[in-house]
Amino acid sequence: MVLRLDAGDPGFEQGFLALLAQKREVSVDVDEAVASIIAGVREQGDAALIDYTARFDGHTVAPAGLAFTADEIDRAVAAVEPEAMAALRLARDRIEAYHRAQVPQDHETTDAAGVRLGWRWNAIDSVGLYVPGGKASYPSSVLMNAVPAKVAGVERVVMVVPTPGGELNPLVLAAARLAGVDEIYRIGGAQAVAALAYGTQTIRPVVKIVGPGNAYVAAAKRRVFGQVGIDMIAGPSEVLILADATANPDWVAADLLAQAEHDEAAQSILITSSPDLAEAVAAAVEAQLATLPRAEIARASWRDHGAIVTVPSLEAALPLSDRIAPEHLEIEAEDAEALAARVRNAGAIFLGSHTPEAVGDYVAGSNHVLPTARSARFSSGLGVLDFMKRISVLRCDPASLAAIGPAAVTLGRVEGLEGHARSVAIRLEASRRADAGA
Amino acid sequence: MVLRLDAGDPGFEQGFLALLAQKREVSVDVDEAVASIIAGVREQGDAALIDYTARFDGHTVAPAGLAFTADEIDRAVAAVEPEAMAALRLARDRIEAYHRAQVPQDHETTDAAGVRLGWRWNAIDSVGLYVPGGKASYPSSVLMNAVPAKVAGVERVVMVVPTPGGELNPLVLAAARLAGVDEIYRIGGAQAVAALAYGTQTIRPVVKIVGPGNAYVAAAKRRVFGQVGIDMIAGPSEVLILADATANPDWVAADLLAQAEHDEAAQSILITSSPDLAEAVAAAVEAQLATLPRAEIARASWRDHGAIVTVPSLEAALPLSDRIAPEHLEIEAEDAEALAARVRNAGAIFLGSHTPEAVGDYVAGSNHVLPTARSARFSSGLGVLDFMKRISVLRCDPASLAAIGPAAVTLGRVEGLEGHARSVAIRLEASRRADAGA
Repeated sequence: MVLRLDAGDPGFEQGFLALLAQKREVSVDVDEAVASIIAGVREQGDAALIDYTARFDGHTVAPAGLAFTADEIDRAVAAVEPEAMAALRLARDRIEAYHRAQVPQDHETTDAAGVRLGWRWNAIDSVGLYVPGGKASYPSSVLMNAVPAKVAGVERVVMVVPTPGGELNPLVLAAARLAGVDEIYRIGGAQAVAALAYGTQTIRPVVKIVGPGNAYVAAAKRRVFGQVGIDMIAGPSEVLILADATANPDWVAADLLAQAEHDEAAQSILITSSPDLAEAVAAAVEAQLATLPRAEIARASWRDHGAIVTVPSLEAALPLSDRIAPEHLEIEAEDAEALAARVRNAGAIFLGSHTPEAVGDYVAGSNHVLPTARSARFSSGLGVLDFMKRISVLRCDPASLAAIGPAAVTLGRVEGLEGHARSVAIRLEASRRADAGA
Repeated sequence: MVLRLDAGDPGFEQGFLALLAQKREVSVDVDEAVASIIAGVREQGDAALIDYTARFDGHTVAPAGLAFTADEIDRAVAAVEPEAMAALRLARDRIEAYHRAQVPQDHETTDAAGVRLGWRWNAIDSVGLYVPGGKASYPSSVLMNAVPAKVAGVERVVMVVPTPGGELNPLVLAAARLAGVDEIYRIGGAQAVAALAYGTQTIRPVVKIVGPGNAYVAAAKRRVFGQVGIDMIAGPSEVLILADATANPDWVAADLLAQAEHDEAAQSILITSSPDLAEAVAAAVEAQLATLPRAEIARASWRDHGAIVTVPSLEAALPLSDRIAPEHLEIEAEDAEALAARVRNAGAIFLGSHTPEAVGDYVAGSNHVLPTARSARFSSGLGVLDFMKRISVLRCDPASLAAIGPAAVTLGRVEGLEGHARSVAIRLEASRRADAGA
């Protein structure tokens, strides 16, 4: 039975807190193993990569075979059904258009004191993209990570993907080709992260590493952070649906299950102002589970982490939603727009009954890499800014330094940093002498 | 003797690599102690805070005395010299103006397919600002962290600052008042970070924690990450100066020493196309050290981490500068503008001979919290975006879902996520039936 809460019950706050505090991930301590793998790659380079790949992925590769060749990628692209290729191309184009609007503007101004100041954005030089192997090897994730990097202007996007038993989904290579990925290596795990961070004879290091992975990959990313930049560490996926009596219970159930089928740790929550809808959705979930291919996973997720919460009004649901800070928030209600305008914490909002979250996973254009585990309270989904950095630029001339410099001298002195004060004062004095001499 | 490198020497690349690889920080392993302090605060709340404060800061405080009162802040403000107060006010106003230009725009568009999509930025609900105690208690850092948070629209900015022996620099309270900080607590160390992350009876938790601190504070921030957001972990400060024969050696030396006086682990590097300037700067550094109050610290930094590099031209210095990715980059050269335009990796650029870095530390308006330890390759200085997050917003109607939905169904199926496909297909079928019925 799925968890049922009613905001009118006296025990509600306690039940809601327990839901918020639910631990959905077993943290596996793989840190020592990962440290040794990283050390191995740093010391032995390609030889270690080949060794770990034989051991963990069960296939033998020569140094010259670490990279996929253009021919191999051509063959993979040729093996993809035209319909799938067209869908990937539509997704690529829409993701590109959406993210192009995120490219930030440089800024420069000369203020009243004559100080010229502003900033300049530019792309990170090179980025590594980790793509999981096997069943979690999603071509859509390749697009969602690589396209924004290319839109940002990253010159070198390097993909790594393990090929257990030598096998790889050709769609992943096709997506990489469509996204403009520059190099692709058949390696995975902590060894791939180490190769991206430190380089080997074959693989030049990158400056930042993004993309999801298992516990080994996550631990490796944490360890190489500093040497390179990393993106957020993604947790299990989640959806919160706010729905009123106008919502279609079958559609709501389908959306809850689309989330639940990801993995057993996924979380699907419905908050509704309609007790009737609550009942209808609960029944529809059971009915749809009967024919869902991944029913076993979806059932476990729904049973262990799902919830249906009834509230007096969806107004009353907003503070609950902000506390959950869901990765995905669907609002299927009459006043969806007004409610959405008041949401403060969410990764992405899907408005109205005709916007299933899955359309955002694939083809809407917005990014599907979104903050999980309540981190939407303080962070954003993946975007172009994650592949750029801002350099601030400042220029004074003698007159503008004379205008603002004395305050810097004062503050340097009160902070006990006389050297700071002097570096300004030495110029102010020279200007004064020059003026006096003139 | 400071390290001297010449780009023309055969051993140059090796020497430069050694300079890049220099480890300037001793990492102290305080993780176990920090874990126990955090657990203490989570279990005992205020009582633990009071206990740790007595133990580590050597003064006794009652729960009611944890927060600074408005009266105490008034008295601190009254104790500050008018000249210092005016300098702080100038700094505050300029920082506010600079950061106001960083407030990002929301975006919304309806594309050719009829899909409405875009994003909305909003402020993080609450932010904790860590301010170190004792000598490193800098009012300028209070402004640099708190003003951008307030410009972003953060409703609740909470400052924590340890008061060893009960003492606090009144300038820190004055800066907090000027920046609009909402609550100030006299606590520090890992216990303060724990209180901000988890809350106590007196202190409500915040959503993100920013600000510099010692090894305990850094370890605590790493540990509470996830529960709350954190900013980057700052390393020792650094400056790189690119200068040609037109630069004033006394000014260059003053700027190198302004950096070196921060702490022994700070780094000051000069790269110059003029061997004469190199000699003159080396001599000027020694001469200025003779009268610098913090000469002992600055001398150790210059001796252990400083460097003077000669290059055939400043053009040739640009790739070296990008590899260093300095926190602060000064360009004191005839063609400073042209050179600056080609810089890819730096926290901030200070252009021309009249822009000492210290003016940026205090009053220029740009932020002085900048990426250290080569992380300018992949990250930016602190800004308004660090206190905001972006929610993506998506809306389809039946027509636009009919346009892009089939591709989502295809991709869901090829990824083996039938539930994803069905959540779209169920709506497409309903629309088709409705159309057929109409």
